[in-house]
Amino acid sequence: MDQAALWKRYQQHRCPCSASGLTLDISRMTFDDGFFDRMGPDLDQAYDAMERLEAGAVANPDENRMVGHYWLRAPNLAPRDDRGIGDQITTVISDVESFAADVHAKRIAPPSAPRFTDLLLIGIGGSALGPQLVADTLATKRDKLAVHFLDNTDPDGVDRVAAALGRRLKSTLVLVISKSGGTPETRNCMLEIEQRFAAQQLDFAAQAVAVTRRDSRLDVHAQQHRWRARFPMWDWVGGRTSVLSAVGLLPAALQGVNIRKLLEGAAEMDECTRRHQTQKNPAALMALMWHHATDGRGNKDMVMLPYKDRLILLSRYLQQLVMESLGKGHDLDGRSVFQGIAVYGNKGSTDQHAYVQQLRDGLDNFFVTFVVVLQDRIRQTAREFEVEPGHTSGDYLHGFWLGTREALYEKGRQSITITVNKLDARSLGALIALFERAVGFYASLININAYHQPGVEAGKKAATQVLDLQAQIVAHLAALASSAAPDEIARALGCPQKAETIYHILEHLAANQRGITRSRGKYRVCQNHAVAC
Amino acid sequence: MDQAALWKRYQQHRCPCSASGLTLDISRMTFDDGFFDRMGPDLDQAYDAMERLEAGAVANPDENRMVGHYWLRAPNLAPRDDRGIGDQITTVISDVESFAADVHAKRIAPPSAPRFTDLLLIGIGGSALGPQLVADTLATKRDKLAVHFLDNTDPDGVDRVAAALGRRLKSTLVLVISKSGGTPETRNCMLEIEQRFAAQQLDFAAQAVAVTRRDSRLDVHAQQHRWRARFPMWDWVGGRTSVLSAVGLLPAALQGVNIRKLLEGAAEMDECTRRHQTQKNPAALMALMWHHATDGRGNKDMVMLPYKDRLILLSRYLQQLVMESLGKGHDLDGRSVFQGIAVYGNKGSTDQHAYVQQLRDGLDNFFVTFVVVLQDRIRQTAREFEVEPGHTSGDYLHGFWLGTREALYEKGRQSITITVNKLDARSLGALIALFERAVGFYASLININAYHQPGVEAGKKAATQVLDLQAQIVAHLAALASSAAPDEIARALGCPQKAETIYHILEHLAANQRGITRSRGKYRVCQNHAVAC
Repeated sequence: MDQAALWKRYQQHRCPCSASGLTLDISRMTFDDGFFDRMGPDLDQAYDAMERLEAGAVANPDENRMVGHYWLRAPNLAPRDDRGIGDQITTVISDVESFAADVHAKRIAPPSAPRFTDLLLIGIGGSALGPQLVADTLATKRDKLAVHFLDNTDPDGVDRVAAALGRRLKSTLVLVISKSGGTPETRNCMLEIEQRFAAQQLDFAAQAVAVTRRDSRLDVHAQQHRWRARFPMWDWVGGRTSVLSAVGLLPAALQGVNIRKLLEGAAEMDECTRRHQTQKNPAALMALMWHHATDGRGNKDMVMLPYKDRLILLSRYLQQLVMESLGKGHDLDGRSVFQGIAVYGNKGSTDQHAYVQQLRDGLDNFFVTFVVVLQDRIRQTAREFEVEPGHTSGDYLHGFWLGTREALYEKGRQSITITVNKLDARSLGALIALFERAVGFYASLININAYHQPGVEAGKKAATQVLDLQAQIVAHLAALASSAAPDEIARALGCPQKAETIYHILEHLAANQRGITRSRGKYRVCQNHAVAC
Repeated sequence: MDQAALWKRYQQHRCPCSASGLTLDISRMTFDDGFFDRMGPDLDQAYDAMERLEAGAVANPDENRMVGHYWLRAPNLAPRDDRGIGDQITTVISDVESFAADVHAKRIAPPSAPRFTDLLLIGIGGSALGPQLVADTLATKRDKLAVHFLDNTDPDGVDRVAAALGRRLKSTLVLVISKSGGTPETRNCMLEIEQRFAAQQLDFAAQAVAVTRRDSRLDVHAQQHRWRARFPMWDWVGGRTSVLSAVGLLPAALQGVNIRKLLEGAAEMDECTRRHQTQKNPAALMALMWHHATDGRGNKDMVMLPYKDRLILLSRYLQQLVMESLGKGHDLDGRSVFQGIAVYGNKGSTDQHAYVQQLRDGLDNFFVTFVVVLQDRIRQTAREFEVEPGHTSGDYLHGFWLGTREALYEKGRQSITITVNKLDARSLGALIALFERAVGFYASLININAYHQPGVEAGKKAATQVLDLQAQIVAHLAALASSAAPDEIARALGCPQKAETIYHILEHLAANQRGITRSRGKYRVCQNHAVAC
């Protein structure tokens, strides 16, 4: 298609959501003229499913749950039943705001310091990815608290963050976020940090806040130990769509983000993405493009290329939102499918110097989603600094986007472009809402449940068995006078098939001065636990 | 395959490189017994090609260049011609060490501060990804300088880093790295930062160091302006394999990393990966596994899952190394191919809570490469903190790796595991060298040139055209009394087909107070440049 035809196609297919200042451009996707008509019936079903979902249907049948993340920014749309969901949402938003205001005004302060200086968020998956995206995208020099994250169960990772906080632990507010209240990674980090509070004779509970479901293990623990505060999570909000619940709003508000603008941006996008006129619904269009690009079977990867340093975590956020929602083994009728769309990317133009070589010349196994931010600097000046007469570094950034979009198109590689006027809480809220709804529509198009994650349990169960086995091995070796090989231990424990797992466990123990030593492929308990042996 | 058979397979196929403390495990890849024999002849050719490369052959024929990154850690192996490559390498390593020692001892100090406190590295692609990986992986509380990066041409990105440095700009050493010496993103960041030095009345040249090819534009500029120092890059080292040249060694040494250990680890791995006995050559095995998993055509994505927070940048580093090397449109015989392997991932167990749902249940379009670090903490203590009796948070991390490996295997998803005893400069050097050689072998197996990147020029050229067009548009509108639509401007400039590009350029200018304003789809020059209009 020549440039003139492409310009016509652009004008025909650009889809603005004016209130949120966002425009979707699908003109560089190579769908044909009949595509929308062919997809019409499936899309109508997707609209219906979305309406039922928003009205409070059990849209997550496997877990028998409603799916209510759209209510978080429009509490008046929540089902009006005796649970008073709308009121709960409204209450939490104002509780979050007043808690943050109290912290900022030092009405809530740590016992051993005049005010809170840092925020340590402990969470993983949906309890970290959204907060991380918001924190990094909207950070400013005027942030009220410096935000840190622990999102794993890596002891060295804890050591690093604790070292960065150092003596400021006494002025660090610790936010422990776990929807279920029983996530082991989160619990482990909490215990590690609690121990450091104890080592510095600080009162952990006075500086700790929980975000979790009512009566969860974490909730009970926080209540019993009189933590500073507790905020609720609800079973009708999934982890990967929880960023506009207390999970994301509380850390954002504490950092100094205007959370009303985040909610407003999402609500404005929701308005646009409820339109049944497909050409005016950016989420429906994006879902259709995913279907077109991947044949509705994930045949191509989604490469996210925001041309903005602040959006570098967007792809990591979307990996969860898209892949955990769409990566399913069965459809809603129980048929075996192998669905999903792989997501990766960092930022432009940086990634042009990493892998655009492959995108342009190599494997055609992807489509790109560009994100463009028109306003270059957050604080504009009367005269922009020019790197050469007439050109700013922002002109280069914008030029590289246009150049790469063109260079890919020339080689038949497809791309979507999302443009926002500027990057702020409102447009970030809109971006988040756009992808949430697109995921929902696409799931309907391919007839899957986007709101459960049955596949993550197997790994957790297998890990629990490993930990149990470790305890048995240590007990066995402690009782044994001599050394033993993994096969011998496996037989002695009555699980001869577990020799490999036993080997890996022993190698890990031996590397960590845990009282196990190795010699010539055999392992034994050390004489002296407390020293290297 | 049952657990007992898998244990046998593990023992048969694990491949240690003892000196570097690294073991490769390919037992969970489902190749059959005849696979190695079938691949034998191709692999023999790969060994031959690698030997010729290491001996100084022109292994990058398109650019008529030798490929010498293996010499960087074994200068005695460099070709003994009149260029004295081996001596040049040795000299640079000791120059880097003595420069860093001088900075640490304050013999080299900034004009307006007692010592350098921060290091700002300006570079992109191969001039940033390696340094970023090393800096983040090996950071400690005792680092000599705090390291910051600018790796784009995003004005807001520059503002953020400049704000973080604040008044410490006066004690910041600025490293400008560009192999060609003409990378626009790098030049733009340099100019932006130079301007900030000027605004604080600081002497940029006295705090600036260049790493670039001799007589490049950057080299000449640095010489003319009497920068503090200049370090060389060579045409026989590609950007994506330059981390063990001055590009990576200088920032690492300044941070406080023992660069001899980095080089040593790489050299030890090189020894292992020169073995022609395939079962004892981890790089050859890894290349074969890539071939097995992707049918030699990139049919599956490479998911990198290091179970260690410090290795979160490994996948980003490997995206460039693997995708820019392998993502090619033509093979060495000029035949059209569409090669490459897509790489993504962050870290475990974190990513289990993001997209392992899709990996286990959904699309089977990937293979996983786990990286396991046996030693949990860098500073081991006599008694590890236990999160429950007998179990540390590191046990959980290790258990989650084993559990996920098992859960994936149960569903027929393949994985490689790389285990290192501990994560330090030496094992990081080994990891880098392992992947470099695997990329080289795999490129031979599929008959492509791994050392050029012809596809990245098109986007740059298209971007240059956009910048030129911008200048024409601004001049045209300045001469025009009235407003005009993109189509009108395109016709007036004699490029009617460029209307869309003109539209995007104008939208960008209008969003940035650059003297262009929009009204009803038409654009005009503002009356008053200096204010919003």
